[in-house]
Amino acid sequence: MTSRPAPARRFLDLAVAQMGPVHLADSRPSVVARLVAMLREAHGRGARFVVFPELALTTFFPRYWMPEAEAQERFFERSLPGPQTQPLFDEARRLGVGFYLGYAELTAEGRGFNSAVIVGQDGAIRGHYRKIHLPGHADHKPEAPFQHLEKKFFEVGDLGFRAFDTDGVRMGMCLCNDRRWPETYRVMALQGAEVVVLGYNTPSVNIHWDEPAHLRTTTHLISLQANAYQNGIWVAAAAKCGTEDGHHMIGSSVIVAPSGEIVARTTSEEDEVICVRADLSLGEHFREHVFNFAKHRRPEHYRLIVERTGAGNPLP
Amino acid sequence: MTSRPAPARRFLDLAVAQMGPVHLADSRPSVVARLVAMLREAHGRGARFVVFPELALTTFFPRYWMPEAEAQERFFERSLPGPQTQPLFDEARRLGVGFYLGYAELTAEGRGFNSAVIVGQDGAIRGHYRKIHLPGHADHKPEAPFQHLEKKFFEVGDLGFRAFDTDGVRMGMCLCNDRRWPETYRVMALQGAEVVVLGYNTPSVNIHWDEPAHLRTTTHLISLQANAYQNGIWVAAAAKCGTEDGHHMIGSSVIVAPSGEIVARTTSEEDEVICVRADLSLGEHFREHVFNFAKHRRPEHYRLIVERTGAGNPLP
Repeated sequence: MTSRPAPARRFLDLAVAQMGPVHLADSRPSVVARLVAMLREAHGRGARFVVFPELALTTFFPRYWMPEAEAQERFFERSLPGPQTQPLFDEARRLGVGFYLGYAELTAEGRGFNSAVIVGQDGAIRGHYRKIHLPGHADHKPEAPFQHLEKKFFEVGDLGFRAFDTDGVRMGMCLCNDRRWPETYRVMALQGAEVVVLGYNTPSVNIHWDEPAHLRTTTHLISLQANAYQNGIWVAAAAKCGTEDGHHMIGSSVIVAPSGEIVARTTSEEDEVICVRADLSLGEHFREHVFNFAKHRRPEHYRLIVERTGAGNPLP
Repeated sequence: MTSRPAPARRFLDLAVAQMGPVHLADSRPSVVARLVAMLREAHGRGARFVVFPELALTTFFPRYWMPEAEAQERFFERSLPGPQTQPLFDEARRLGVGFYLGYAELTAEGRGFNSAVIVGQDGAIRGHYRKIHLPGHADHKPEAPFQHLEKKFFEVGDLGFRAFDTDGVRMGMCLCNDRRWPETYRVMALQGAEVVVLGYNTPSVNIHWDEPAHLRTTTHLISLQANAYQNGIWVAAAAKCGTEDGHHMIGSSVIVAPSGEIVARTTSEEDEVICVRADLSLGEHFREHVFNFAKHRRPEHYRLIVERTGAGNPLP
């Protein structure tokens, strides 16, 4: 082994707070109370940052066909924090614990986004993200067992994939389907992200083709593992899972090390907190050697990634 | 489930021919005889395409410090096929079996590349690739247990990542370390590649830092699995492995389905053939739905991938 000084070790006490189902009948205050309870549990176990799911405040409403106006009235946040979510922000500041939260965002102009924020240990918003890789469809599919209407209720995010400095850590974020696209992680790693956090709602049934059910979890995990490794970053992913009003979603919330190894994983499909002491310097080994981007990347050969959207013919 | 016609099924009978060690003292004809024997075995088991390793004709010579001229004389091919490799091409044509082969290429101008070819069932070369992501170093590291001198002996490939049509299949290829870079697969998938083939020589010891030994196999596998899935392609990877003159390399040659699942894997560190009947239409499910690039990709948010080489500051 080449003798060289090891990078100084820095740690992030990181938790994932998976959520069990949020039913249509569940009130917003009852959901926020669950989030606050998990924030406290994570803090009690030493965490300084907690990752909550995508659309954490409501049921996964894109499964229901309804007019936009109705969805916006019932499921979207006009401000964050707002009157009903303020207790979560207050508790974060009181405990000195940052968090990531996914929610449906309604702008003053009436635009809808599937969004997330990173909140610092002082309770202030440090980063804002609007989901870019919207899955599903915009039309009504009455023959399907349920809908996946993200392309109806949300616009494509317009804030890009960005890294944010929060409490001494450079953190990126994304949402659900973004985690299956390697571009997501790479763009944030190219901004020096050390940790990428995300929430997801992943139905156990693929409405588009007869995908074997076990693949829903397999593909979730390998996507997180390979992209953590290939960028030398920690990845923490929080599910909303279990059966929401008869609709089952996968669990398997995980924290993945820059080695690509799953180092913490939920065992239930209910509210459940998992924690690790994440060694941020571990990623530096990968980023200094096999994934020393400056030394090894060859962007002149990657141009098709931005020059084409869909697949085309072989290069001449 | 939405009722829709399944894509017509197309199959590729695909084999990986892993190689045990090639020692410094092994002659080129003895190595070619091993390749021919595995080509025949694969053919006898129904294969129509066989994937051989990187630098299949020689030991992994970048582990040794020596002058370029000496390396070129001993280990590089001035033509392919050449007098010593012609028997492999002849046997491929006789059997009607295509193959991928990695070799050290010396051009007429004296330039060295770590290269590979795809050869059709008629024994003619259909595609040519020169390795882009060269790992290791160019300087002598006498304190290391061995060298990794790919940056000394080879120039960065100048042919790009391309897909080639061969015997009715659109195939891409890469070499070893390329398999850890998601850009590799994406650029070929954007050209409609259905299968990506590659060979590798991966030392069991990382000379750059004290990487836990088991990670060498873990990271190899998750890279192949996630990139197969994220592009909806088959990936076939052939190791040269076992102990070459005291230097151990990992095995675990695999064939990975577009689901990200390992569907065939070697169990030895010797010459070993594995085969699958690869259903090419399986990838179409992924490419039509979750990875429908035309519908879901957002290149306007990927620009950093080509605008930066190394990592920099967060976007403003």
